[in-house]
Parts: sequence; structure tokens; C-alpha cells
Amino acid sequence: MKTYLECIPCFMKQALKAGKITTCDETKIKELLDHVGSMVKEIDLEDIPPEIGAKIYKKIHEITGVKDPYEEIKQSNIKEALKLYPELKEIVKKSKDPLLTAVKIAIAGNVIDLGVNKEFNITKDVKKILKQDFAICDFNEFKEKFEIAKSILYLGDNSGEGVFDRILIETMNKPVTYVVRDIPIINDITFKEVGVIGIDKVVTEVISSGTTAPATVLNLCNEEFIKRFDEAEMVISKGQGNYEGLSEVKRSIFFLLKVKCSVIADHIGVSEDDIVLKAINLRA
Amino acid sequence: MKTYLECIPCFMKQALKAGKITTCDETKIKELLDHVGSMVKEIDLEDIPPEIGAKIYKKIHEITGVKDPYEEIKQSNIKEALKLYPELKEIVKKSKDPLLTAVKIAIAGNVIDLGVNKEFNITKDVKKILKQDFAICDFNEFKEKFEIAKSILYLGDNSGEGVFDRILIETMNKPVTYVVRDIPIINDITFKEVGVIGIDKVVTEVISSGTTAPATVLNLCNEEFIKRFDEAEMVISKGQGNYEGLSEVKRSIFFLLKVKCSVIADHIGVSEDDIVLKAINLRA
Repeated sequence: MKTYLECIPCFMKQALKAGKITTCDETKIKELLDHVGSMVKEIDLEDIPPEIGAKIYKKIHEITGVKDPYEEIKQSNIKEALKLYPELKEIVKKSKDPLLTAVKIAIAGNVIDLGVNKEFNITKDVKKILKQDFAICDFNEFKEKFEIAKSILYLGDNSGEGVFDRILIETMNKPVTYVVRDIPIINDITFKEVGVIGIDKVVTEVISSGTTAPATVLNLCNEEFIKRFDEAEMVISKGQGNYEGLSEVKRSIFFLLKVKCSVIADHIGVSEDDIVLKAINLRA
Repeated sequence: MKTYLECIPCFMKQALKAGKITTCDETKIKELLDHVGSMVKEIDLEDIPPEIGAKIYKKIHEITGVKDPYEEIKQSNIKEALKLYPELKEIVKKSKDPLLTAVKIAIAGNVIDLGVNKEFNITKDVKKILKQDFAICDFNEFKEKFEIAKSILYLGDNSGEGVFDRILIETMNKPVTYVVRDIPIINDITFKEVGVIGIDKVVTEVISSGTTAPATVLNLCNEEFIKRFDEAEMVISKGQGNYEGLSEVKRSIFFLLKVKCSVIADHIGVSEDDIVLKAINLRA
């Protein structure tokens, strides 16, 4: 997905939000906003938004010296999500269609996103989403592919969301390779959080995509990941960032996300706050 | 009021909004955002926010060549407000306290603000506000000053809002000098709109403050206005922009506004969407 004009004030707002989480020093946050402001003229509207996000968060690290400002928040989100785990597992177990229910739970976990300008309440939002209808639901296509696929490449997104991914992965009960970000960026999942959640115990392998962006942006990924991505039988992509990074890629992908901004809503053709299971390039 | 870090993404959002109202040319809007981005480093947090607003809107005029992009919207807002005029006059007439009711109506008109990132529906919002309680209501102080003042200096704000100002001015029934902006800026009221609304028929005089900002920022006003402002027996200031410009000024002022952003809400000590009649420096 390209960058829209609407993304530009949003980058500035994200920088402010991240700056305030990282430091209390107003001068440093102003310095950060000065930098992001001067970066605007370098933005090409053909860029993928998370490519710009990568530059902004790199600047935060440079200015504040803090490598993982979201560390505490991530741990707190994971803790809250883990509390919901037994209840959600029970819901899947009792469900008429456990796979569909687990897909919805995995999407519900996508509310835990600190890269968008929206507040969230994990417990309340997840329960609300479980009652929500899909705006797009390519579940038949998902199920068809899932049944023939011998293994799945699963692109993780936010840290707390990983708990909900774990439920879907356990429900699928097939060999899964779970993909994380290479470095801490926003509240996205890395190797460290995978261990806390225990995803490593339920998948075949955890790998990094090599990206320094808050998304799977292929030109920022490493060769090994790109090979795995190209060869994967089935790709499940979680969240907005991965959608932004991969929406124009010419291979089959199943996007599972909660829509949290108007630009992405317009791009998909749904409304803000909708939940989506969208398949692309099914024949590729 | 000083500029807060939160104002910076908001300037960018305002620039985008104004750019989209002014032109359909994405390249020109991007050029505008590039300029506003590079202006961020020149922002001193001690600046008054509308001083920066003045620079942004000047840049829009330079880039697009359009001097009054809000012209049609202003006329349409005035038309809608004028439709409400007879009904609102009747409400004042039947009211137990016509002056207080007219003050509330004048504040209700302050929803018609295109300089903030909030949508509005004139008819619906005005009727809602008429039922709303004040968060701050220094009406006793207002009434006391009003009763002894032989004349009033009334600082206008948005164009459509002028219709509601007219109702308060008619209710006060005292000599009023109505103050407008010097040039078209956002949807603020100028001499042109005053004529359409008929404010000129109910006041002693209409003058310009000389400001090129979307607010009464004294260091951007002309000498004649500053003299009138200093000597006025009673000053009524409408809206957020005028509050931002005058909140630290050392003379008595009655601020009438609808709070439309979190920064101003925090500064006043109220909540977003509150309505306020706030007096400052009553002994000065």
C-alpha cells in the first residue's frame, strides 16, 4: 500500500506518542518532532508507510538512547492477554466451528496496537470483537487452503496479540513457522516476547523476517525470509502493518486484521473498526 | 497560551484539511505539508498557536494562489445559521433569563469552527448545546460588568457564528464595537460576512483587529485596535483562537467558547466538548 497524504499528520502524531512513552524530556520530544517534520519532504507517496515508520522509530532511538521504550507496556499487555487465555481456549473448544472462532480470536488480539492513534482495552475490546460480524470473511477460501497446506508461515504483529495467535496456532494443529520482527519496534513481537507467551512451544520454528520496520516490508527483509515467504504453501499475515507492507505482493496471502485507521479502511473498502479476513491472489 | 507538543501534529492535520479544501492537486498539498513539516523546527513552544496558524494559512495562499478557500463554506454556514435565527430569537424572548440564554446561544455558535479537527452539524449541535450545562459559568461577574459598562468590545470568531453573536448583541442592547479579522483566514469572520449577517446594523461600529492570524494575537494587531482593546470597559472574546491569543493578557476579558481540543481543555481545566463562560482579571 502506498502512503496517503492522511498518513503524514499521523506519522507526526505517532512520533509524539512514541516520544512521550520514551522520555519525559520535552526538549528531546521537540527535537524528534523537528526531525520528523524535516523528513516530510523526503516522503515519496509511493513509499510503503511502515518504511517511513522504521525511520521515525530509528530517530527515537538515536535521540533518546532508549532501544525498547515499549518493553514494560509489552509485558503488561502480554500478562493481561494471558489472563484471557483459558477462557478463550474454552470458547474455541465449545464452538461449533473452532477454526473460525480461533481466527476471530486472533483478529481480536490485533486491537493491542500502539502504532495507531487509538486507545484500547484488551479485555473489553476482545469480548466485543468476538460478538462482531466480519466485514470481509474469506473463511471458505482460508479453510480450503488450510486443509491442503502441509505447513503455514504465520506473520506475527504486536506482542500481546501473540497470545491470541497462539490460540489459532494450537487450533490449526499443523506445522507453523512464526515470524517476528528483527528488532524491538513499537510494541511489535520479537524473539523475546515469543518466549514469554510460549509460542515457541507450539510452533515448528520461530524466525525473524529481518525487517527493521513495524511491518513485513519485503525490501527491508532478509534473503532467507524472502525465500521462505515465496515458497510457503500458506501465508497468514496479522495486522495493519503487515497489510500495508504486503497488500500489493503477487502471492496468495490471508490477511487477518482489525481496521484501525480510515486510510486502510478505504484501501480495503470497509469501515474503521471492522474486522477482516481477506484473501488475495488465491491462484498465485 | 503557549504552544504544546500536541499542537504540532494538529498543525499538520489542519494544513492537510485546509489543503484539501483549497485544491484537488495532491502534489500541491504534498508541497504544503513539506513546508509545514520544515516549519516545525522553527516553532518555539513559547509561541502562541495561532501565530503558527497564520504562517500555515499564508503558505496555503502562496502555494495555491487561492485567497479565500473557505468562501463558499462560510456562506453556506451563514445561510444555515440564519435559518435558525427566528427560532433562537423566540427562545431568548421566552427565556426566564434572556441574557444568559443569549450568552449560551453565542457559545453554541462556536461549534462552526473549521480550524479544529472536529466535524460539526450546526442545527443539531446548537440544539444540543442549548441543553448542556456550563463547565465554567462566570455569569454573575459577566452580568455585573455588563450592567455598568456603557459600551462593549466584542471579538468575533467564525463566520457562521456571527449569526449567534448578533442574537447576543441584540439582547444586550448596548453600544457594541464588533471586531473582525483583517483578511480571510480559515472560516473566520471578516467585514464581508458581517454585511451578509447584518451585524453592522445592530452594532455601533465594525472594526478590524489588523491580525492576519486566526485569532486576536496582540503582537499581530494594529495600534488602533490595541488602543481600543486597552481602553474598552468590557471585552467579550469568542472562541478558541481568541482564547489562545489572549489568555495571558493582563486585562479583564470574558471568554465565551466551546472547547474543541484536549490542549485547550487542559489549559482551562475542563473537558473537551464543554461550554465555558470564563472571566479573567476582573479587577484589571
